[in-house]
Amino acid sequence: MNNLDIPDIIISRLPIYLRALRHMQAQHTQTTSSQELGARVGISAAQIRKDLSQFGEFGKQGTGYNIGFLIDKLREILKVVQVWDVAVIGMGDMGHALARYQGFKDRGFRVAMVFDNNPSKVGTKVESFVIRSTQDLVTSIKQSGIKVAMLCVPAAEAQDVTDLLVEAGVKAILNYAPISLSVPSGVRVQYLDPSIGLQRMTYYME
Amino acid sequence: MNNLDIPDIIISRLPIYLRALRHMQAQHTQTTSSQELGARVGISAAQIRKDLSQFGEFGKQGTGYNIGFLIDKLREILKVVQVWDVAVIGMGDMGHALARYQGFKDRGFRVAMVFDNNPSKVGTKVESFVIRSTQDLVTSIKQSGIKVAMLCVPAAEAQDVTDLLVEAGVKAILNYAPISLSVPSGVRVQYLDPSIGLQRMTYYME
Repeated sequence: MNNLDIPDIIISRLPIYLRALRHMQAQHTQTTSSQELGARVGISAAQIRKDLSQFGEFGKQGTGYNIGFLIDKLREILKVVQVWDVAVIGMGDMGHALARYQGFKDRGFRVAMVFDNNPSKVGTKVESFVIRSTQDLVTSIKQSGIKVAMLCVPAAEAQDVTDLLVEAGVKAILNYAPISLSVPSGVRVQYLDPSIGLQRMTYYME
Repeated sequence: MNNLDIPDIIISRLPIYLRALRHMQAQHTQTTSSQELGARVGISAAQIRKDLSQFGEFGKQGTGYNIGFLIDKLREILKVVQVWDVAVIGMGDMGHALARYQGFKDRGFRVAMVFDNNPSKVGTKVESFVIRSTQDLVTSIKQSGIKVAMLCVPAAEAQDVTDLLVEAGVKAILNYAPISLSVPSGVRVQYLDPSIGLQRMTYYME
């Protein structure tokens, strides 16, 4: 099946299933049901079965899903069996936090390069990374073959840096700047926007 | 209609519509269609019409949606007409970034208090905030009536701090720690997990 035939909303749920399954695995659970998984992630059992059925037959009526097997399948589907090198652009607070973040381990990503446009930062180190100049961004990323970037620059600079990332061949941008980015088709952007996360909860407040 | 009658998956899309509509408004656009909005946010026009119809009749056949009106309605539904005070726990890189973040403006939130458990940080300032001790968290948050928190402590401390937040009366937690939190019913958690955002894109990579 072509990977564009499946609705994006289904794809967006698979990483959430994967994270929940890994938590279950860490607790030494062997099997689960769509009901149990659904209760963990707040998605109906019917929706989970429908989502997974797009990719094959992963569970058995009555016995449910083998957690290890389903994790392997989801990692294959999401292409995170491999480890993707990631560039972080903008070494402010958020960029620093990401360069040091321990949560990418075993999830398919590794920070490989960090950039900033501030001459007083370029050449200094964050963790084991020497901060590179944004002026060298296109050359460095092209040479390294990096396809994934996290963007932590101020909103006013975000589109310009995005244009450089696209020129460098980056295909996936995780955007922390609170601004919508324009990218050509074939390049994807995801937004990590704390206001969105908060607004999803205030709806339920008394 | 009771606010628990509408599926959470629909609620989760409303903040995304709201952000896109505000971008359109900033570009001085007056009206939009479910098709145009859908193209911006990557959700089908039919889904958008169905989602919005849960809350009333906001558009007209043929003329579409009045952007200002729809923004007002979504802000009411999401309860972000008011401004929510937010506590930030953990003044590492991520906590610093959030204390300084400019993206909450006009979106319903305002950082009001920041905490850390490191005695060398307590009493020092981040922006205009004096860092308070996590030991005083329950008292301070109870007194202030804060209901919303952003959690930026290490994974190993996240559940303990969450228990304090719950005790203090917090009802909505935005969790940056890469760990699942247990909370009683009536308390909500949203996860801002960069690995999830990245995995939603690697699926599409060649």
